[in-house]
Amino acid sequence: MSHALSPGDDIGAYMAQLGQAARQASTVMRRTNTGCKNAALLAMARHLEAARPTLVEANARDLERGRASGLDAALLDRLELNESRIDAMIEGLEQVASLPDPVGEIDGLRSRPSGIQVGQMRVPLGVIGIIYESRPNVTVEAASLCLKSGNACILRGGSEARESNAAIAACITRGLIEAGLPEAAVQVVATTDREAVGHLISMPEYVDVIIPRGGKSLIERVSREAKVPVIKHLDGVCHVYVDASADLDKALAIAVNAKTHRYGTCNTMETLLLDAPVADELLPRLAAAYAEHGVELRGCERTCQLLPDVTVASEADWAAEYLAPVLAVRVVDGIDEAIEHIERYGSHHTDAIVTESYTLSRRFLAEVDSSSVMVNASTRFADGFEYGLGAEIGISTDKLHARGPVGLEGLTTRKYIVLGDGHVRR
Amino acid sequence: MSHALSPGDDIGAYMAQLGQAARQASTVMRRTNTGCKNAALLAMARHLEAARPTLVEANARDLERGRASGLDAALLDRLELNESRIDAMIEGLEQVASLPDPVGEIDGLRSRPSGIQVGQMRVPLGVIGIIYESRPNVTVEAASLCLKSGNACILRGGSEARESNAAIAACITRGLIEAGLPEAAVQVVATTDREAVGHLISMPEYVDVIIPRGGKSLIERVSREAKVPVIKHLDGVCHVYVDASADLDKALAIAVNAKTHRYGTCNTMETLLLDAPVADELLPRLAAAYAEHGVELRGCERTCQLLPDVTVASEADWAAEYLAPVLAVRVVDGIDEAIEHIERYGSHHTDAIVTESYTLSRRFLAEVDSSSVMVNASTRFADGFEYGLGAEIGISTDKLHARGPVGLEGLTTRKYIVLGDGHVRR
Repeated sequence: MSHALSPGDDIGAYMAQLGQAARQASTVMRRTNTGCKNAALLAMARHLEAARPTLVEANARDLERGRASGLDAALLDRLELNESRIDAMIEGLEQVASLPDPVGEIDGLRSRPSGIQVGQMRVPLGVIGIIYESRPNVTVEAASLCLKSGNACILRGGSEARESNAAIAACITRGLIEAGLPEAAVQVVATTDREAVGHLISMPEYVDVIIPRGGKSLIERVSREAKVPVIKHLDGVCHVYVDASADLDKALAIAVNAKTHRYGTCNTMETLLLDAPVADELLPRLAAAYAEHGVELRGCERTCQLLPDVTVASEADWAAEYLAPVLAVRVVDGIDEAIEHIERYGSHHTDAIVTESYTLSRRFLAEVDSSSVMVNASTRFADGFEYGLGAEIGISTDKLHARGPVGLEGLTTRKYIVLGDGHVRR
Repeated sequence: MSHALSPGDDIGAYMAQLGQAARQASTVMRRTNTGCKNAALLAMARHLEAARPTLVEANARDLERGRASGLDAALLDRLELNESRIDAMIEGLEQVASLPDPVGEIDGLRSRPSGIQVGQMRVPLGVIGIIYESRPNVTVEAASLCLKSGNACILRGGSEARESNAAIAACITRGLIEAGLPEAAVQVVATTDREAVGHLISMPEYVDVIIPRGGKSLIERVSREAKVPVIKHLDGVCHVYVDASADLDKALAIAVNAKTHRYGTCNTMETLLLDAPVADELLPRLAAAYAEHGVELRGCERTCQLLPDVTVASEADWAAEYLAPVLAVRVVDGIDEAIEHIERYGSHHTDAIVTESYTLSRRFLAEVDSSSVMVNASTRFADGFEYGLGAEIGISTDKLHARGPVGLEGLTTRKYIVLGDGHVRR
């Protein structure tokens, strides 16, 4: 029941053991059928259900230690595992079990003039390393998505959640064993030594990709030091551009929703761009709506002429990811200036245009180089659930491999398959 | 007509200028329509045709300098631009012009319960840096694929081909100008200083991906030092496994073709695995066929018992990419041992099974973790042209992003698009 490997003094040797075991497990996972993977997910859900008291107790010890060491209220909130969060973990497992299995899907199988048939088959990446911070429910989310996509994974959670993560890991292991899968298909790193991360990101022989989930400094450190490919999720400096051709009621609804639906998420609008001809009419209506929500505005000169009470934005405001009830507002002259602004200051995450113009909607979709580009919709829709991926492991701001919300498909790759009948090349 | 930027003493400043110009050009290329891109490709072809004498003269100077500096015959052959190679460059441009444009393709546009429609749009990567060695025709191949896929590119050829590359670059530039495209859409680095490569692979703000084409040492150096994602193409240690269920005539044809069709290519078979029950019958027939082609065999103990003249293979032979008329041969006990051998010694490039068994063909396809996996076909088919990509920029041995032959699609990425009608998130 307990994990075979335990960390000793030599963290490097321990991590290499985990890596080796994961690599071996990945060759089993690769050929595990959908039914068996789903059985493991549902068994994990049952074991979490049965372990509720244990989970809450383990989490209480983490919370106590956190409080004693002075963690702030926001961090303590993210660390907490209460009954409703355990419900959510269990529902998450059931939901991932119900998603279609991407592995084995064959695309574009076509006959070639030589007589061979060529197509692409979707296959697991292999071993995925995930590094995350305080939220212990990530342990279940990450494990379930990696398992369903046929990968083995090595999970490194935050030290503040170590007892909660160990209790969750025990349920995951029981589920794997019950379904007849290798325990090493999901391994939770059992040391809080920071050195472990350094090893995890430097073992290309055992780990195929690293996904860091957490603050900017974690992601930047991992990206800088990794010797393994990284799927990363950096800032969301998202824009809504309201063109002169917009329906102003839609513009108002979208601009308010994109800012105020939630402040701390990466798909929240941080800068609003208004086309000059509609600024006069729209700005006062927007200002009133934002005032109601307690959103502070920082404006360009032209904004401040129309709204004298607004603070003048500095250069830094245009590139800021506030994650707070603050919004930068700029009046621009048409779509070209808007796209230039987005190109210069944006983070290529999610940007939207509000317009009734067919031509401008097509231009914006084609020319804005962001992971999600929207017409007449709130940036808050940029999310794996809203997009129908079922669940997401993060939102990639990379261009290669996976871009935007990363679901099961982003945890797979496609290899070519060739079917012949004794064919040789002439 | 001539390029605006020229390298001075400060290679770093020069490369940053190229990068900045490329980034700017990429925003134009991204929105350039198919007709205009094709017009540029065909204009380049016409300018190459008109410049034949100039190209041959420039190449003669490269060849002369190469001979004087003692380049070996193989390198001099790759460096040579004769009339038939110029024909091939011109045909290549015409062929890329005739390929479908991947940019703008929208996949899977579906309505979501919230009312938005979500899909994925194929878009250029942005700026691609390509580093290659002696063959000057790569300049045209790389430029044409990057252009057709809507990217700007920075090309760094080998110093031994510098005059040839400059002459080709002049034709490319004329073609761009004629089609009204920015000259900086294709830039050939005009210095042979090795420092230039170091800068090219360290400018993530200007370059989105690096593709090294050349020997293993070049690719390893670039991968190790790059601060930009690299699409790489490493060794091809390819296998053919002949199962006991094989049709032995097909097995013989495939095993001979996979080894002898060409020796120096990455998709050439380097190790042949024979299932024990058919080794007795097949080995003597194979040995005779290989002897005819002058292929030297290195065998496992069981092979050497059946063919006493064969040299015993060392451990190094199992991992060797010979690129020569040499073949390692091993007798194994069934598909499991074959897959284990491929997993342990292979390079995840291209591996084939010969079998008449439905079940074993499905297992091999699912379980062998290589960029191309084949049933009853020669490994030599692993090639962009044979797969119908029209052309290839290389064969990726990476798992992320592009795997296997990389054509136009591999030079693009997909972003999410969201179409709404004033939709906000509840």
